[in-house]
Amino acid sequence: MQNLYLGIDIGGTNTAFGLVTADGEIVARGSIATRGHGAVENYVESLFRAVDRLRYEEARDSHISAIGIGAPAVNQNSGCIEGATELEWGPVVPIAQLVRERFGVPTRAANDANAAAAGERAFGAMRGVDNFIMLTLGTGVGSGIVCDGHLLAGTHGFAGELGHYLCGPGHDRMCGCGRRGCVQTYASASGVVATLREVLNETPDRPSTLRGVDPGLITPRLIFEHAEQGDETARRVFAITGRVLGEVSANFATFTSPEAIVLFGGVANAFKYMEPAMRKALDRDLLHIYRGQIRIVRSQLPGSDAAILGAAALAQSVQ
Amino acid sequence: MQNLYLGIDIGGTNTAFGLVTADGEIVARGSIATRGHGAVENYVESLFRAVDRLRYEEARDSHISAIGIGAPAVNQNSGCIEGATELEWGPVVPIAQLVRERFGVPTRAANDANAAAAGERAFGAMRGVDNFIMLTLGTGVGSGIVCDGHLLAGTHGFAGELGHYLCGPGHDRMCGCGRRGCVQTYASASGVVATLREVLNETPDRPSTLRGVDPGLITPRLIFEHAEQGDETARRVFAITGRVLGEVSANFATFTSPEAIVLFGGVANAFKYMEPAMRKALDRDLLHIYRGQIRIVRSQLPGSDAAILGAAALAQSVQ
Repeated sequence: MQNLYLGIDIGGTNTAFGLVTADGEIVARGSIATRGHGAVENYVESLFRAVDRLRYEEARDSHISAIGIGAPAVNQNSGCIEGATELEWGPVVPIAQLVRERFGVPTRAANDANAAAAGERAFGAMRGVDNFIMLTLGTGVGSGIVCDGHLLAGTHGFAGELGHYLCGPGHDRMCGCGRRGCVQTYASASGVVATLREVLNETPDRPSTLRGVDPGLITPRLIFEHAEQGDETARRVFAITGRVLGEVSANFATFTSPEAIVLFGGVANAFKYMEPAMRKALDRDLLHIYRGQIRIVRSQLPGSDAAILGAAALAQSVQ
Repeated sequence: MQNLYLGIDIGGTNTAFGLVTADGEIVARGSIATRGHGAVENYVESLFRAVDRLRYEEARDSHISAIGIGAPAVNQNSGCIEGATELEWGPVVPIAQLVRERFGVPTRAANDANAAAAGERAFGAMRGVDNFIMLTLGTGVGSGIVCDGHLLAGTHGFAGELGHYLCGPGHDRMCGCGRRGCVQTYASASGVVATLREVLNETPDRPSTLRGVDPGLITPRLIFEHAEQGDETARRVFAITGRVLGEVSANFATFTSPEAIVLFGGVANAFKYMEPAMRKALDRDLLHIYRGQIRIVRSQLPGSDAAILGAAALAQSVQ
């Protein structure tokens, strides 16, 4: 009888799940639609059946010893999803409790970025590292902070919202939160696209293979492809993104004295174009006691499985 | 037989110590000179004898169950004082180990600000509070961060150096660390005096009772006294200090989601003139999820005993 962890990744459209060994191998995986179940209890019931079927078909000789859930806007302390507008179950959803009761297994929930940090520490680049900050650079920017071996939760589970750390005067891009200059207005997918727009406008005479592209089609992935083909403007966009991340990371250091800053998510695919500028800004701005102490690392979780692995890592931590 | 904790506060000139009950009552206190002992082992021997004498004279029926040490530049993980230029014992002093060995009792050391945070949580305004940030506003600015009930240490014990958090563009005062715009260039004693100088220069026509004072005699205490007597310039100086603290605290929130920011130290005597501006700036800049969640609190540790109580609180935590 093999002991497995169930990792569940609840996205706005799809819920992916996997049965994961203690070493981080996904032995079976499945998914259900997140929407269309009506009440959350029905969703949990569908999830239970889908998991049960998966275990019967692909891992019959196994036992689920704990469950981890990664989802948007989870209060890590209460295990509730609070105010996730992309989900349809109301303002406060006690997802950990509902899953725990239906599956009869210890269950822990955290927001996506915290789950990613847990996954990185269990199965990725941060194995054995007690102090690091994970920045998830995607549609938005999230963060998970591990300090002294502990994934910080804070009051109401709202520790680690570094996507909404204000970069300060001179950084005045409007953020969805209603304030100006949040990190995510620079380092999210749309932030990177906004930087491209600025760079193109500021250097009208510089040729760029990106000038001819329909603005509606521009994504960080496309900018990265142009950077790979040698476009200087595309490379500059990621250098600027890296510089902003380096500047704020110098201040991040004064909080938890991390050994590494880990970049994760779609934007982090351009790591090689961001890292040098991030390193330079970080070294320039860092307090002397931290100099030479902080690595800048790209996540080593496989992108497509990262969310399931992160959730499975949460599961490991509740046993 | 009463169980007591020994709290030791190592300052550049003087070492104060006290025997403290589990409730934070100091039943006996003493001190020795910090300097003039030669090797640190001799200093520890003098300390041991002084404590032993104190216990014999004033708390004979007691037992010391643990020792806490607050000192400058302590690596909380190793218990070593590292690079404290005001002490004379060399670059790395394993103070916790030396004290532990001589006294034969569990011993923990931390830097002053972390000890203050521990003291506030054990005996002061933060009893029962699991998430808060303590800012010590004195000759420099230090901080102690408690998150999820844990006093953060970080890599090399260097978590919580918020005195060297950079306020960002527009804040360009030179700091002793070689960088510009650190929080302590605004919120330390000399930072407050610098703000007064700026305000006096910027408003040459506004009368102020501080204009006639010999610049060499100006201290935060004196500015506070003038504020108490109604001087608007003096009050404005503390309002500016509070505003800077409120602005940076909005970003502090995104790290550990604290329930309170606690102000401690000499500059915090002017709390009533700083708090309204700090509150206003914090509420203005705070991410919505934290609004209404964060109190601004003045330390309730008695100033003269705070260091001993903080060290005693560290002692409690090692048992």
